[in-house]
Amino acid sequence: MSRLLLNCDMGESFGSWTMGLDAQVMPFVDCANIACGFHAGDPGIMRHTVGLAVASKVRIGAHPAYQDLVGFGRRSMACSAEEIRDLLHYQIGALDGICRTQGTRVTYVKPHGALYNDMMADPQKLRAVLQAVAEYDRQLPLMLMATADNSAAQTLGDEYGVPLWFEAFADRAYDAAGRLVSRRLPGAVHHDPATIVDQALRLARGEPLVAVDGSELRLQAQTLCVHGDNDSSVAAVQQIRQALDAQVAS
Amino acid sequence: MSRLLLNCDMGESFGSWTMGLDAQVMPFVDCANIACGFHAGDPGIMRHTVGLAVASKVRIGAHPAYQDLVGFGRRSMACSAEEIRDLLHYQIGALDGICRTQGTRVTYVKPHGALYNDMMADPQKLRAVLQAVAEYDRQLPLMLMATADNSAAQTLGDEYGVPLWFEAFADRAYDAAGRLVSRRLPGAVHHDPATIVDQALRLARGEPLVAVDGSELRLQAQTLCVHGDNDSSVAAVQQIRQALDAQVAS
Amino acid sequence: MSRLLLNCDMGESFGSWTMGLDAQVMPFVDCANIACGFHAGDPGIMRHTVGLAVASKVRIGAHPAYQDLVGFGRRSMACSAEEIRDLLHYQIGALDGICRTQGTRVTYVKPHGALYNDMMADPQKLRAVLQAVAEYDRQLPLMLMATADNSAAQTLGDEYGVPLWFEAFADRAYDAAGRLVSRRLPGAVHHDPATIVDQALRLARGEPLVAVDGSELRLQAQTLCVHGDNDSSVAAVQQIRQALDAQVAS
Amino acid sequence: MSRLLLNCDMGESFGSWTMGLDAQVMPFVDCANIACGFHAGDPGIMRHTVGLAVASKVRIGAHPAYQDLVGFGRRSMACSAEEIRDLLHYQIGALDGICRTQGTRVTYVKPHGALYNDMMADPQKLRAVLQAVAEYDRQLPLMLMATADNSAAQTLGDEYGVPLWFEAFADRAYDAAGRLVSRRLPGAVHHDPATIVDQALRLARGEPLVAVDGSELRLQAQTLCVHGDNDSSVAAVQQIRQALDAQVAS
Repeated sequence: MSRLLLNCDMGESFGSWTMGLDAQVMPFVDCANIACGFHAGDPGIMRHTVGLAVASKVRIGAHPAYQDLVGFGRRSMACSAEEIRDLLHYQIGALDGICRTQGTRVTYVKPHGALYNDMMADPQKLRAVLQAVAEYDRQLPLMLMATADNSAAQTLGDEYGVPLWFEAFADRAYDAAGRLVSRRLPGAVHHDPATIVDQALRLARGEPLVAVDGSELRLQAQTLCVHGDNDSSVAAVQQIRQALDAQVAS
Repeated sequence: MSRLLLNCDMGESFGSWTMGLDAQVMPFVDCANIACGFHAGDPGIMRHTVGLAVASKVRIGAHPAYQDLVGFGRRSMACSAEEIRDLLHYQIGALDGICRTQGTRVTYVKPHGALYNDMMADPQKLRAVLQAVAEYDRQLPLMLMATADNSAAQTLGDEYGVPLWFEAFADRAYDAAGRLVSRRLPGAVHHDPATIVDQALRLARGEPLVAVDGSELRLQAQTLCVHGDNDSSVAAVQQIRQALDAQVAS
Repeated sequence: MSRLLLNCDMGESFGSWTMGLDAQVMPFVDCANIACGFHAGDPGIMRHTVGLAVASKVRIGAHPAYQDLVGFGRRSMACSAEEIRDLLHYQIGALDGICRTQGTRVTYVKPHGALYNDMMADPQKLRAVLQAVAEYDRQLPLMLMATADNSAAQTLGDEYGVPLWFEAFADRAYDAAGRLVSRRLPGAVHHDPATIVDQALRLARGEPLVAVDGSELRLQAQTLCVHGDNDSSVAAVQQIRQALDAQVAS
Repeated sequence: MSRLLLNCDMGESFGSWTMGLDAQVMPFVDCANIACGFHAGDPGIMRHTVGLAVASKVRIGAHPAYQDLVGFGRRSMACSAEEIRDLLHYQIGALDGICRTQGTRVTYVKPHGALYNDMMADPQKLRAVLQAVAEYDRQLPLMLMATADNSAAQTLGDEYGVPLWFEAFADRAYDAAGRLVSRRLPGAVHHDPATIVDQALRLARGEPLVAVDGSELRLQAQTLCVHGDNDSSVAAVQQIRQALDAQVAS
């Protein structure tokens, strides 16, 4: 079976403010989505986070966002395709520059927050992101959300020549279309470690999940999004890591 | 004789605000010092300015600054060596990323405003800048101020393995130590085009200038800092360009 | 006849960047909509602009915006009602504080750019703005766009106890519903001074305009939005002022 | 004996980042120094913190700073007296506006971080601060550091007509001149609760402290600066509060 990469948002501290247990979770993930200063992260935080990733041999992805520190990049902004292109190039370049000084580089791109949501909801925004990534480096994969049918996104990715890495979640419930159930609804987030590990293993094996309406849901995903926000989410990542490694070894 | 490169600050507009006649002056200079978003410039302005430089086959330099939009990077900030390193890497990288999408790259570094002044006044700051440039790319020259005696700076540049490009001014009066006369003093700025062109030619030929105290001043400079702020400074750049080209051709 | 107040956006410079001919246009207007630092303006610009208004005995209005310097507050942001309330209170308070030091105060509120458009398009946003103004000071009028039917807005204004000042434009064409014709369409902006002055006088007299489809359009407006961007717009303001004063005197 | 007011920095969260145990410490202090958005705090955080202060009947002070989010206002910036005045008016006004909507107001000013340090080190900066406070409201006291000799500061305060509240620290060692011992030196910070409470009581009673060189140090202080950073500092505040209240009651 192919390996399911664990990706995790990192470097989301800012100045004197700390967020996330980056140092604890880094050894257990494959891909670090590092904030680039527009929603979180500053040059010093970025350098430190790149250093953690290098020490754990973790791939570094740019995690660019709308320019909105107060809103943590979670508020959609009416940016044009040109503005999205430019803010992506700026942020990817800034992180790549910091990587360069530590002998590494950015190897994929995962937009953050509202930019990620807008890209999933609006094909014109997805085109803007794909074009920006292609202009920066056609070898860089774009990480985006797996759904029940990835084909429309894949067609666009092919058009721009950008590899796509679809991501899934082990700790979230899905509807029949492969969309995340809103956090405002009961049962949207799994808290039971056994459930989380089971969902991760199903995704890794290419087995179907059970959607909230009881239907079978098949998600094609190359990567699993995990979280290092707090002790329990870090513990979950360790368990997922262990389960995935055991399966690969078997 | 060796060629005296003309360098000019560019891309200092921001958002809806315009500053400088970049399009007019670009064809007459050799080196564009492009603002990187911390004192001026935003991702869209940077892309546009890089495009102008590419169209005129002008070398692109990063023009990084302290993070101070309101103060245009002209207010000294008590940054540590680590903070200076990180803000340089971030800004150089961001501009380099935008250059990459247009098939070019950053080929030198010139700090802006208060960061430039602090680097000239304090060897510890100069060390921080040199180390940051060396870590980013030891091939990138650092542009700094020529004085009557460049040897201390040159020794530091050699220590870090960073090439130095010393710059002089054709439109400013110098004191005997090769420092610019303060703009608050009378005669600090030359306005007569003939005087400006004459000073440029002397610098290009390696001939001495006359300092304000009447003494002879020899400046070793590889580049001349010119300005595109307004019509008369652009006209001066054109005259300098013509005079230098005529001399090279002769 | 009642007086039609001329209002004009002011203080939209930022740091070292200049925008607008505030000093030239100030003597001819009644109301200065002063930027509060989120889309334009900084504390020094605000102090200077308040000083100009005081010198010309012009009423000062807060001109708050989404926090978006790069986009000049023109990009809609998905802010909650609470976020809109808080950013309004912060910006109105900041300007009011600066007014206080010059013996004056904020006497009305006119949201800027995308916040203004969002408030006109979405009653929930208008409610958020009205509640914020009411909480700050129920005496402060809110300036908003006059349309063919102001009644829905007026009902909401009454609900929150906030006086409304409807504004119209002398230099823009209207459709039959009293909405501005998009600038992308031909004829959207009047350039002929006689046309502009005529439209201003009709609005002042309460006479109908002719909409782009030839129908009669009656706008109830207490204020006219004028512009100090450049020499020709300042000249237009002077002509409007003269025409309105002549009419009042007659 | 006169009452020694406990003041504490508050509202230093920003956007999605949390700092300080404001809700826990608020009930035990007299004065909340609330960040105004330039080094920490945003409009939503400010509103929330003002609400906490109102609920605990705590006086609200403006805690303005240099504009430096990344550096948390701890990096000195070369601001002119005019720039200091303007940034103070803007920040005090913004907080006062938010206070107004909750039926309260700013009742004193305590500059933050590097601005505070610069004001203590440079009489020209102190003059700039005093003038700004006087222009805003001559009734507002300015909080500043008590030293062995407050007379120079008091003379300046009298010149501008601004009341001064000198503050001391219960958890810091002093040198013979009444300056805080640098945190880089051993013994600079008291950790033993009994020592902290003893120092608070001595300051409240007007009794001398023992400086690090063994000499007697008399500090005239109206207020004591306490901290709500973590559980142990909150516990210390509770103990100080209890000890001071017991003494006042006796």
